[in-house]
Amino acid sequence: MRGRSINLAISHRGRVALRSVGLEETVLGSAIPMQGRLLHGKTGALQSMPYDPVFNNCIYSIGRNSLNEVLLNAAENYDNVKVKFDHKLVNADIRRGVIRVQNKTTTEVFEETADLIIGADGAYSVLRSAMLMTPMFQFNQTHIEHGYLELYIPASLGDKMTPNHLHIWPRGQFMMIALPNKDTSWTVTLFMPLDNFTSLRDEDSIMYFFENIFPDAVPLIGKNSLVHTFLSTKPSQLISIKCSPHHFGSKFLIIGDAAHAMVPFYGQGMNSGFEDVSVLSELLDKNHLEVKEIIKLYSEMRVQNVQAVCDLAMYNYVEMRDLVMRKSFRARKAVDEVLYKLCPKIWFPLYNSVSFSSLEYRRCLENKKLQDKECNI
Amino acid sequence: MRGRSINLAISHRGRVALRSVGLEETVLGSAIPMQGRLLHGKTGALQSMPYDPVFNNCIYSIGRNSLNEVLLNAAENYDNVKVKFDHKLVNADIRRGVIRVQNKTTTEVFEETADLIIGADGAYSVLRSAMLMTPMFQFNQTHIEHGYLELYIPASLGDKMTPNHLHIWPRGQFMMIALPNKDTSWTVTLFMPLDNFTSLRDEDSIMYFFENIFPDAVPLIGKNSLVHTFLSTKPSQLISIKCSPHHFGSKFLIIGDAAHAMVPFYGQGMNSGFEDVSVLSELLDKNHLEVKEIIKLYSEMRVQNVQAVCDLAMYNYVEMRDLVMRKSFRARKAVDEVLYKLCPKIWFPLYNSVSFSSLEYRRCLENKKLQDKECNI
Repeated sequence: MRGRSINLAISHRGRVALRSVGLEETVLGSAIPMQGRLLHGKTGALQSMPYDPVFNNCIYSIGRNSLNEVLLNAAENYDNVKVKFDHKLVNADIRRGVIRVQNKTTTEVFEETADLIIGADGAYSVLRSAMLMTPMFQFNQTHIEHGYLELYIPASLGDKMTPNHLHIWPRGQFMMIALPNKDTSWTVTLFMPLDNFTSLRDEDSIMYFFENIFPDAVPLIGKNSLVHTFLSTKPSQLISIKCSPHHFGSKFLIIGDAAHAMVPFYGQGMNSGFEDVSVLSELLDKNHLEVKEIIKLYSEMRVQNVQAVCDLAMYNYVEMRDLVMRKSFRARKAVDEVLYKLCPKIWFPLYNSVSFSSLEYRRCLENKKLQDKECNI
Repeated sequence: MRGRSINLAISHRGRVALRSVGLEETVLGSAIPMQGRLLHGKTGALQSMPYDPVFNNCIYSIGRNSLNEVLLNAAENYDNVKVKFDHKLVNADIRRGVIRVQNKTTTEVFEETADLIIGADGAYSVLRSAMLMTPMFQFNQTHIEHGYLELYIPASLGDKMTPNHLHIWPRGQFMMIALPNKDTSWTVTLFMPLDNFTSLRDEDSIMYFFENIFPDAVPLIGKNSLVHTFLSTKPSQLISIKCSPHHFGSKFLIIGDAAHAMVPFYGQGMNSGFEDVSVLSELLDKNHLEVKEIIKLYSEMRVQNVQAVCDLAMYNYVEMRDLVMRKSFRARKAVDEVLYKLCPKIWFPLYNSVSFSSLEYRRCLENKKLQDKECNI
C-alpha cells in the first residue's frame, strides 16, 4: 500500500531539526534532490525553473513511510522513550490536566498525565478540540475549494520524466504535480475543485479531460490506472488551520499540523512542524525556565510565524497553478534572481528565505510585501 | 438572581418574527422603548442622539427572563410541541442522524432522532462541534480583547436617568452602557479589556478607576454594589463565530448563536436569530420542497447575511466606544440624516437599514461601503 500522502519535500528547516538529532544524513540518504520546478505546458513543452540559481540549494523528495521508520527507530533507541502503537487519544480533560487514551485492541480507555503533554495529533487534533472552548482561544478553519487525488507513474516509465525536478502541470483551476520516488517511480498529485471531481464519473469523461488538459501525462500514468484510480478513490480535502495560543494551562501544548495545518503548496507543512521542535527544544534547554513558562513563551514566539507560513501556503495555492505561467510572474522571478545575485544580503527572494533559511516565517512574509511594493506587483 | 444577560434590544427583525406568531404585542407590552442613545461625557454632559429622527422608529429594551417566559408559554400551547427541561445535548452522531441527550436528573443518556433536527444551542453549540469535522465546513472563532461585567442601578435611583434611551459612556478602550428595566431599575454593562479587569482588584483601585472614568455613574450604581460586584464576579468573555454551511446532510441545521454568535454591539444577536426563524418558516411553508432541500437552500440564503451582521457588530465594537465621540462621526451622522430626510429611498443609513428594516444584512453592509465611499470616510 502506498498510503496517504502528498509526497514530502524536505528543505532547510526540516534539515536543521534532523541535524540536531543526528538524522539528517540518514534521511537525505534515501531522499531525492530536486533542483527546480519543471513546468509542463499543454503542448508538452518543458521549462525548468531552478529553485536557487545563486547558491544551488535543493529541496528533497522523501517517502512518508521511509521517514517515519527512521524517526521511530531513532526514538526507540532512547531509554526514556516508550512508544505505544494502536492507542488513540479519545479526549482530554485539560482543566484536570489529563488525557484519555484508548487501547484499540482491548478497547479499554485509561487516563494518562505527565508534566508536559504535547499534542502532535494532526490537522484534526483531539487535544486542540479540547482547547477550542477555553477563554481567548482564537481559531480559524478553512477548507479550500480544491481537493486532491493521488496518481502514479510506475518505475518502468519513470525514466521518461526529467529527473531531479518537481514536475508541475499548471492549468489555472487545475494543477498536477509529480515528485520522484527512490525506485524511479513518481507520485503524482492532481489538484482540482471538488465539483470537477464529481463531474468525472466514467471512463469517457476522465479520458477526455486528461487528454485535453494533461495530454503528456496520459501515457506515463496509463489509461487503466488513471480510470481505475478515479473511479475507486474519493478525492481528499485540503484544510488550513490557524489558532492561538498553542498552549493551555501549565502543561498542554500543540505542535505541527495540530497547531497549524496548512495547504501543501509551499512544501512547508512538515518543515514548519520540525522547526516547532527545534524552537521548543531550544527553550527546554534553558534550564532556568519552568515548563509552564516554556510553553507560554513558545506559543508567543511561534504563533505569528506559523500563521505567516499558513498564509504563504495559501498564497502559493494561487501562484503554483496560475501565476507561474504568466509573463509578469516570470519577469518578477528574473528580477529576484538578478538582485539576489548582486546583493544576496539585501534582496532575499521569498522562496529562498522560506525554503533555504531559518529566517522567521513572518519576516519572510514581511520581506515579500516590501519587495512586492518595490516591484509594483 | 438576575442571571446572565447583556440586556436584549428588540428591533424590526425580531418584531417581524414575533408578529408572525402573534406575540409582538405581548412582548412589546413588557418592553421599554428607547428612542435614541444618550451619551455621557466625562464631565457629566449629556447628549441625545435619536436612532431615527426621520420616521421615529425605536428599539425596545426587554428582560431576557420575561421574553423566555412569553415564548415558552406560547410554544406549550401547541399540541405538537413537547418541552423537556433539564436535558442536555451531550453529542451528535450526525452521520448516523442521531443526537445523544442526557436527562440531568437521572443522568441517563439516550438517543433521539427526527426528520429535522435544529440546533439552537448557542455560541458553544454541541451540534456545531459535530459539524466542525465534516467536509468543507468553514469555521472562524474570535474572542475579542474586551470582556464585560454587569452592574445595576436600583429602581429607587432609576428616575435619575433620562428615560427611553440607551445610555452610553464611551471612553475609547472602556465603554459602559445602561438599558432600562420595567421596574425603573437599569442594567449596566461595563466593557473593558480583560487585562484591565485583572488590574482592578481592591476597593481603592476600583473606586479610583470609576471616579475618574465614569464619575456620574458612581452615585447611581453605589459604591458598595460596585465594589462587591467587581470583587465577586469574573468578567465574561465575548466571542464572535462565523461558519458555513449551517446544515449537514439531510436533517441537521444550526440557527441563532450556534450558527453566528456575534459581539453584542449592534443589538442584533437575538434579532438575527429570530430572523433565521422567519426565513426558515417561509421555506418550510413551500410545500413542494423536501426537508433536505430546505435546509440546503436556507444555508445558501443565510450564510452571507449572518456573516455580514457579525462583521457589522464587530465594526460597532469600535464605533460605539470610540467614534461616537469624534467630530467626524457626528458630522457623518448629520449628513446621513439630511440625505435620509431628502431621499429616503436612495440614502438609507446603516443603522436604520439594520435595525428598522428587513433589508438583507449583506445589502446593508454593501450600502454602507458605498456610502462610506461617497462621504470619503
